[in-house]
Amino acid sequence: MTTRPLAVIILAAGQGTRMKSARHKVLHPVAGRPMLLHLLASVAELAPQRQVVVVGAGRDQVETAVAGMDVAIAVQDRQLGTGHAVAQAHDALAGFAGDVLILYGDVPLVRAATMRAMLDRLSRGDEPRAVVLGFRPDDAAAYGRIIADGQGVIGKMVEYKDASETERAVTLCNSGLMAVRSTDLFVLLDRIGNDNAAGEYYLPDIVMLPGAPSAVIEAEAWEVAGVNSRAELAGVEAMWQARRRAEAMRDGVTLIAPDTVHFCHDTVLGRDVVVEPNVVFGPGVSVADNVVIHAFSHLEGASVASGAEIGPYARLRPGAVIGPKAKVGNFVEVKKAQLGEGAKANHLSYIGDAVVGAGANIGAGTITCNYDGFLKYQTQIGEGAFIGSNSALVAPVSIGAGAIVGAGSVVTRDVEADALCLVRPEQRGLSGWAKRFREKMKARKASKG
Amino acid sequence: MTTRPLAVIILAAGQGTRMKSARHKVLHPVAGRPMLLHLLASVAELAPQRQVVVVGAGRDQVETAVAGMDVAIAVQDRQLGTGHAVAQAHDALAGFAGDVLILYGDVPLVRAATMRAMLDRLSRGDEPRAVVLGFRPDDAAAYGRIIADGQGVIGKMVEYKDASETERAVTLCNSGLMAVRSTDLFVLLDRIGNDNAAGEYYLPDIVMLPGAPSAVIEAEAWEVAGVNSRAELAGVEAMWQARRRAEAMRDGVTLIAPDTVHFCHDTVLGRDVVVEPNVVFGPGVSVADNVVIHAFSHLEGASVASGAEIGPYARLRPGAVIGPKAKVGNFVEVKKAQLGEGAKANHLSYIGDAVVGAGANIGAGTITCNYDGFLKYQTQIGEGAFIGSNSALVAPVSIGAGAIVGAGSVVTRDVEADALCLVRPEQRGLSGWAKRFREKMKARKASKG
Amino acid sequence: MTTRPLAVIILAAGQGTRMKSARHKVLHPVAGRPMLLHLLASVAELAPQRQVVVVGAGRDQVETAVAGMDVAIAVQDRQLGTGHAVAQAHDALAGFAGDVLILYGDVPLVRAATMRAMLDRLSRGDEPRAVVLGFRPDDAAAYGRIIADGQGVIGKMVEYKDASETERAVTLCNSGLMAVRSTDLFVLLDRIGNDNAAGEYYLPDIVMLPGAPSAVIEAEAWEVAGVNSRAELAGVEAMWQARRRAEAMRDGVTLIAPDTVHFCHDTVLGRDVVVEPNVVFGPGVSVADNVVIHAFSHLEGASVASGAEIGPYARLRPGAVIGPKAKVGNFVEVKKAQLGEGAKANHLSYIGDAVVGAGANIGAGTITCNYDGFLKYQTQIGEGAFIGSNSALVAPVSIGAGAIVGAGSVVTRDVEADALCLVRPEQRGLSGWAKRFREKMKARKASKG
Repeated sequence: MTTRPLAVIILAAGQGTRMKSARHKVLHPVAGRPMLLHLLASVAELAPQRQVVVVGAGRDQVETAVAGMDVAIAVQDRQLGTGHAVAQAHDALAGFAGDVLILYGDVPLVRAATMRAMLDRLSRGDEPRAVVLGFRPDDAAAYGRIIADGQGVIGKMVEYKDASETERAVTLCNSGLMAVRSTDLFVLLDRIGNDNAAGEYYLPDIVMLPGAPSAVIEAEAWEVAGVNSRAELAGVEAMWQARRRAEAMRDGVTLIAPDTVHFCHDTVLGRDVVVEPNVVFGPGVSVADNVVIHAFSHLEGASVASGAEIGPYARLRPGAVIGPKAKVGNFVEVKKAQLGEGAKANHLSYIGDAVVGAGANIGAGTITCNYDGFLKYQTQIGEGAFIGSNSALVAPVSIGAGAIVGAGSVVTRDVEADALCLVRPEQRGLSGWAKRFREKMKARKASKG
Repeated sequence: MTTRPLAVIILAAGQGTRMKSARHKVLHPVAGRPMLLHLLASVAELAPQRQVVVVGAGRDQVETAVAGMDVAIAVQDRQLGTGHAVAQAHDALAGFAGDVLILYGDVPLVRAATMRAMLDRLSRGDEPRAVVLGFRPDDAAAYGRIIADGQGVIGKMVEYKDASETERAVTLCNSGLMAVRSTDLFVLLDRIGNDNAAGEYYLPDIVMLPGAPSAVIEAEAWEVAGVNSRAELAGVEAMWQARRRAEAMRDGVTLIAPDTVHFCHDTVLGRDVVVEPNVVFGPGVSVADNVVIHAFSHLEGASVASGAEIGPYARLRPGAVIGPKAKVGNFVEVKKAQLGEGAKANHLSYIGDAVVGAGANIGAGTITCNYDGFLKYQTQIGEGAFIGSNSALVAPVSIGAGAIVGAGSVVTRDVEADALCLVRPEQRGLSGWAKRFREKMKARKASKG
Repeated sequence: MTTRPLAVIILAAGQGTRMKSARHKVLHPVAGRPMLLHLLASVAELAPQRQVVVVGAGRDQVETAVAGMDVAIAVQDRQLGTGHAVAQAHDALAGFAGDVLILYGDVPLVRAATMRAMLDRLSRGDEPRAVVLGFRPDDAAAYGRIIADGQGVIGKMVEYKDASETERAVTLCNSGLMAVRSTDLFVLLDRIGNDNAAGEYYLPDIVMLPGAPSAVIEAEAWEVAGVNSRAELAGVEAMWQARRRAEAMRDGVTLIAPDTVHFCHDTVLGRDVVVEPNVVFGPGVSVADNVVIHAFSHLEGASVASGAEIGPYARLRPGAVIGPKAKVGNFVEVKKAQLGEGAKANHLSYIGDAVVGAGANIGAGTITCNYDGFLKYQTQIGEGAFIGSNSALVAPVSIGAGAIVGAGSVVTRDVEADALCLVRPEQRGLSGWAKRFREKMKARKASKG
């Protein structure tokens, strides 16, 4: 375990042309979180002293995304290669002495454990000049190859196009990620040239400079998957989801059709939770034990207590706090609202900016009218209250404990506990009217036909 | 075809630790039915005289699950191996003479035809001591190997760890399922030892005891897939679904995106049914010919007659009986309710505990208020009635044939046939009020800003 | 590029028995469009002078499907093979001189570019007698093999069953699609026999008749995939969808879970559109740049302007025109209705036959009552109007700009601009009623228990 000071450089200066997007490539989300923030979250586990993101175009977007995060921005004005990009971090690392980890903003899934392993290797007794992160892809294709001995000491690192047949047969490839001591990094970068077809300075070239050999450690291929197009973005998302689903099942969650459940980066699920097909988790969801989430539910910013039942077709929005054994049924939206223990909102309702007491029953078609076009207001529903179907509760309003609101009521004034509230005109019947209407309309249709 | 008496022993004594569940492993559902009940349903086709489930922990759960099913429960107190588990069925089989089929509660997909083939083989002229069910997995891995001749007569059955290179090259593996004559079974079990690393009694050891050889027949690998984790549970579910989808298409159902349609163990579909993407079937659904089920629909306990149209986003709950050419549209829930021929409930409605006549039209946002917090009540809607939008029908209530209910009505008393029912206060207008309100609110916001 | 006159013959005379459908096989849809119409759309890019569909049973269905499309129908009364089927087009091609392209109604994905390449090859200097479309399937199985030289000149075409070992090792297979000059076609057909097991006349036999050699060009396997069963129909649909998804991502659309998004043949999406999981596009959808389509949305016949936000659980039906930055939220159905810039209908609403002004806010549970059982009527909602929750707007009705409609109103008369509209009875409270009711009901339940 390394204890030396750490600086992290994240390269994010690529144009991202193939994304065809006005959004900076590293800000495209995976599992609901921008790629760059995935990396920074993993990096945070290593408690770095410095963090530098090297950007080209789109600096403002990146600055906004990392605002308040103690991340320095360095700018690479011209696209002169990865070596040149790293060199732009020079000023941001002024006065820093320790290890430097070089990551890529579009390679978001690298785990903290892997980063740590790179640093550990760098501090081993044989003092490698650099530690390169290698991987063995299913199809090594045109990746640069790493020729190393059994201890991971690198004999040669070679671009695919320059590689011999024997070298191409090697399956260990270069991911581009690297760890180097700060005392060496900029010295080495000064020594590499741009004598190649593209006229660029390549970071990996520091490995083949004369002097001490570098070392390689291996990551799994999914960890170093990069994103250059929306298809690759979807591919990385799919890999992330597959791993998260496996993890959920391993921890005691039933996923009836795992491929149809979409998690967010921070989803928390208890044991014996059952998730039916076609469920989407947005950010900030926490679900306790023994909850059933029925098909077609969508949860975001919500906490669901033990034994609750959600869906099908339930939408929980930020601030939804669903109590133990409470039920949120079909076509029901809950936003910034608490449902007490055993409370039920089973059908076609909107519960927003509300506090619903334990055991209360919200009838089908109930709407909390929380907005007047300018401000939002609260609805209070007491314990054991019964809200008749198709009622509109015009906030701010309070329904007392045990009160009953008659079906179809528009409630504008508070209802006292245990009272019945009725807001209902007389029912009138006009005998034969419908029959006459039908005949008139049929005649009209016929005359037009 | 065997006609000898049959007893079935289902082993269900494993701890199921990797499931991380308070629910007994064999009670986790596949296609909406507990694994154990899948097995018992297949077994039922063979009309066994005795059925014994051998349980360890969780006896109560299993007893509850098989209540009323003529299934004996035997208990294995200590985990001393499959041989020991089978021995626990001894008392439950007292007085029984015939064939014994040994199954596993966590191997749920074995077909009755395969079980029958095992019994047939047992009764063949060469009188094998036992019939073992073999299979050829994609990756034979560490499964025990079966060395057999061209007639399926077993020369050797060997654990992977004890197998020679040559034996490991054999692709026929032991599923663990077995058929033995009752007169032999317990005698053989008495003769096997527990002289192995785990100190357990292994059922397959009866095959290698001196005496008559056993025979093997082969099942397809999916049939003997076992469940030890939620990931394997999802895998078995996926295999079941894939087969069911193929069967539906073969029988004349269009599945536009088969992988997104989730069937239940008892789903029945007619010919020229079209199922759009993302449809979930719960238990007890029967759909007649020429029905279209649009995307995002969820059906459970429902019967749908010919030519009906369901969804998108329709939820049919138990007791929904949808008549010929009837339509249930988006965000509509139907529960314990009949819709007559050609009746329509197209938008945002809850139809519960109701009878809707042929050709009736239920307007958007209609709610049948069927519950007063204590009891449920019926709503009757006559043939050709027209329920205006956003109406609440407070049950018990009856709307006569051909009647019209005006939009937004709360109907508490019966409406006679062909009448118009209006429940509506006067409309009032306050000129300029909205403008003044806006100005006031804007000023308030400005003063706070 | 060929400029010779073109006639196209589409064979559609197969029984389609394995489809188990009352619908003609070539009319089963892929990506929302009948297979036959996919072909005709591709063919249209080649501007043919004649188009003939050869049908067996189900002529009426095919005629209805191509009504008004300048397509001749020829009938093959008896199933005497593909050669015989093509011969039935003889009369429909009377007087035509040029190239003839022979396609199959159940091979729907062939691209116009591929058809053009066949015709180009036919007009090359070496004047091949016919051009056959070959392909190299993953598993060549029992397809007929094409033995050709490096220039694609065919030496031999052989049925699998008649092929030698060497011939079977050839991976180039015959798709059945062919281009022939009209002057040759019927002469050649006259010369082939039916001296085979089935007693049928096979179109490919024209290639092996004495005379000038034919040529082959190659298509990708997916292009010539045929449909003989619903499983193959689903397979072709899946191939089409996979290609369309890749195309969308390449063009700058984010698909978070590509496999869960289902496109229609004519879906148009702008750049930086984000499509969340589980979205279904029906026919006629056009989405501008920077639109977010949330999970579980269903769009059909709708146009969505830049910056709008759709869903989750939004259903846009034909005639929905969503303005820039407008929002259509959960459980909201929009049909034949325009939403102006920035207008919002966020929850549980039905907006049909309506024009909603810019910036208007439609409260939760709002219903436009557009239907009286006979006719549909319009609702007009002015700019900046605010419709309180759970309101029913009984069309024809107009809500003026800036007006406010109180929650729960049933609006039957026009509301003037900037006015407040209230349709609401007095709220009544009956103290203690609910408590007495509960006690009575509990007592009743207890006495029954």
